[in-house]
Amino acid sequence: MTSNGTVKVEVGLGDRAYDILIGSGLVGRAGEEIAARLPGIRVAIVTDENVARAHLDPLTASLDKAGISSTAIVLPAGEKTKSFAHLQEVVDGVLAARLERRDAVIALGGGVIGDLTGFASGIVRRGMNFVQIPTSLLAQVDSSVGGKTGINSTHGKNLVGVFHQPRLVLADTDVLDTLPAREFRAGYAEVAKYGLIDRPDFFAWLEKNWQEVFSGGPARTEAIAQSCRAKADVVARDEFETGDRALLNLGHTFGHALEAATAYDGTRLVHGEGVAIGMALAHRFSARMNLASPDDAARVEAHLKAVGLPWRMADIPGELPDAERLLAYIAQDKKVSRGALTFILTRGIGKSFIAKDVPASEVLAFLKENHPG
Amino acid sequence: MTSNGTVKVEVGLGDRAYDILIGSGLVGRAGEEIAARLPGIRVAIVTDENVARAHLDPLTASLDKAGISSTAIVLPAGEKTKSFAHLQEVVDGVLAARLERRDAVIALGGGVIGDLTGFASGIVRRGMNFVQIPTSLLAQVDSSVGGKTGINSTHGKNLVGVFHQPRLVLADTDVLDTLPAREFRAGYAEVAKYGLIDRPDFFAWLEKNWQEVFSGGPARTEAIAQSCRAKADVVARDEFETGDRALLNLGHTFGHALEAATAYDGTRLVHGEGVAIGMALAHRFSARMNLASPDDAARVEAHLKAVGLPWRMADIPGELPDAERLLAYIAQDKKVSRGALTFILTRGIGKSFIAKDVPASEVLAFLKENHPG
Repeated sequence: MTSNGTVKVEVGLGDRAYDILIGSGLVGRAGEEIAARLPGIRVAIVTDENVARAHLDPLTASLDKAGISSTAIVLPAGEKTKSFAHLQEVVDGVLAARLERRDAVIALGGGVIGDLTGFASGIVRRGMNFVQIPTSLLAQVDSSVGGKTGINSTHGKNLVGVFHQPRLVLADTDVLDTLPAREFRAGYAEVAKYGLIDRPDFFAWLEKNWQEVFSGGPARTEAIAQSCRAKADVVARDEFETGDRALLNLGHTFGHALEAATAYDGTRLVHGEGVAIGMALAHRFSARMNLASPDDAARVEAHLKAVGLPWRMADIPGELPDAERLLAYIAQDKKVSRGALTFILTRGIGKSFIAKDVPASEVLAFLKENHPG
Repeated sequence: MTSNGTVKVEVGLGDRAYDILIGSGLVGRAGEEIAARLPGIRVAIVTDENVARAHLDPLTASLDKAGISSTAIVLPAGEKTKSFAHLQEVVDGVLAARLERRDAVIALGGGVIGDLTGFASGIVRRGMNFVQIPTSLLAQVDSSVGGKTGINSTHGKNLVGVFHQPRLVLADTDVLDTLPAREFRAGYAEVAKYGLIDRPDFFAWLEKNWQEVFSGGPARTEAIAQSCRAKADVVARDEFETGDRALLNLGHTFGHALEAATAYDGTRLVHGEGVAIGMALAHRFSARMNLASPDDAARVEAHLKAVGLPWRMADIPGELPDAERLLAYIAQDKKVSRGALTFILTRGIGKSFIAKDVPASEVLAFLKENHPG
């Protein structure tokens, strides 16, 4: 921790290594932090209409002060922006600004803006510098680490993209104060996920300190830093997702299926909520398969419930498709390899593992038992 | 060289290393060569209408015989196909075929199909296996090595793309027999380029043996193999084009400007012809700057003339923009760094080097002296 309370997490990826700075007031210090690492560049800022209202002027002022000229590309807010059409819009905007490879594209926003902008910066001139200023908790603890970028296709989410590492991530903890409570909670599901994957002590710390994380201050910075470190460790072991990195999908196979089953209708279920229910289901299913203790599943459910997150399918408003249809959504998920079902299952809190060849019949039976309909 | 006359060039890029096979009858052996390296996969073949007529059925039959099921995506022929719209078409086609990461996308065609398909395969699921079956001489000696992929933008050519290495390249020398003479000659310009960059003995060999290269047989295979080796050497030193790889742009700065100045009208000038004139101009300009002997420039011009390639601006049919306008096209080229003009110049045959900060005034004077108008 530096004197002003900023924490630095180094993501060790050889010549693609970069820093994540986490703390208060970083949007206002963005210009100096960028200029120190990438001297003499120009930038394009990609953001959405909502984020622009709150944070674009302070960011532009900070860049100006550091002598960095910038142009802004402001897109509509929402998941639909992760499309080919908006990808082309960003690419054309960066080229129209005549930025060169050594210049940078800044993503100022949540996961949608980060994923889209990272993809665009990865393909303009076959890869430009990329800086992330994530403005949601989810983006700060998830998409800011690992270099996965992408857009959605009619065939599914995140099916098109590249691996492109940022040169710098600035996670300003103050901007989270302006998030709706529901969105902060949804991001918290991914924080808890890191504890459940392989950091049981962190999960136990969250059980005790989650209220301080929600209210802000050093506990929030610490939770974000721990999450980034946890993800960075996994990514450093498996940058291109050929093995271990799949652990980060804990809760995501069930979660994605539920998101698809609710037609990505954010009024019913947002991504982090899907992950929350997915993690609870992964633990409960592991218990059903006699891999983990039912007590651990209950502990996960209790914590999600305590923070106000949904933890079971019955918590999703409206009707769900039946179990057979949910299984079909799971089978469509991109984590299906050679037709076999792959899940992240667990042997207990912080003991998750990659389970290949999970029998579809067991999953179907489990979905039927837990279906609210 | 193997018993059937096939030559193998290994492109050494660590865990992204791959083989280029060069020789007769490789389309008919594609199935077995692919199955040996990527067992159990399914493929999508991307090609254009012209190439499909001649080579799609033999390729499909060869894949069938090896037990590889395939689906074909047939696009219009021509440079306009390197667009966002066709990129999306290929991406959607590959996803619609439900191919997974371990499956492969095959590019069957010239540079346009190779660049577009390589890009699509590099972004579907953040990178699928990619196999190239280049059907033009240009594609066999240029785009088959190095992993550069991309599409054009309204702001310029090849401004959007990724680095994505193929898993295998099959350069079937027989398919070149069906090329129009003009297209074969245009591709030959890039063959000569490798001699001019850093292989003076190869250039001298071409001066003696070019007729055998044009008529086919072992000399053609040898010329293609030498070209692939030359390019592979440069790429292995600089995979992501941060330095030495720029040598491959010998002739391309002038060439691209002439292509742009003729509005990419292939009836007036195709890419290889632009490179031929560009190489001659680069040698003549180097002589003018007292870097190289005028005799070497004359030797380059004489060889290009002998094989029937254009070698001076006056060889381009129709009127050209004036020298000032040509300089503006050069300055727009993506190889401009921080506003300074970068050229590949030479100290003689096989002695090319990267020249930064070339004075625009000298280039302008040179263009005026050599302008046919």
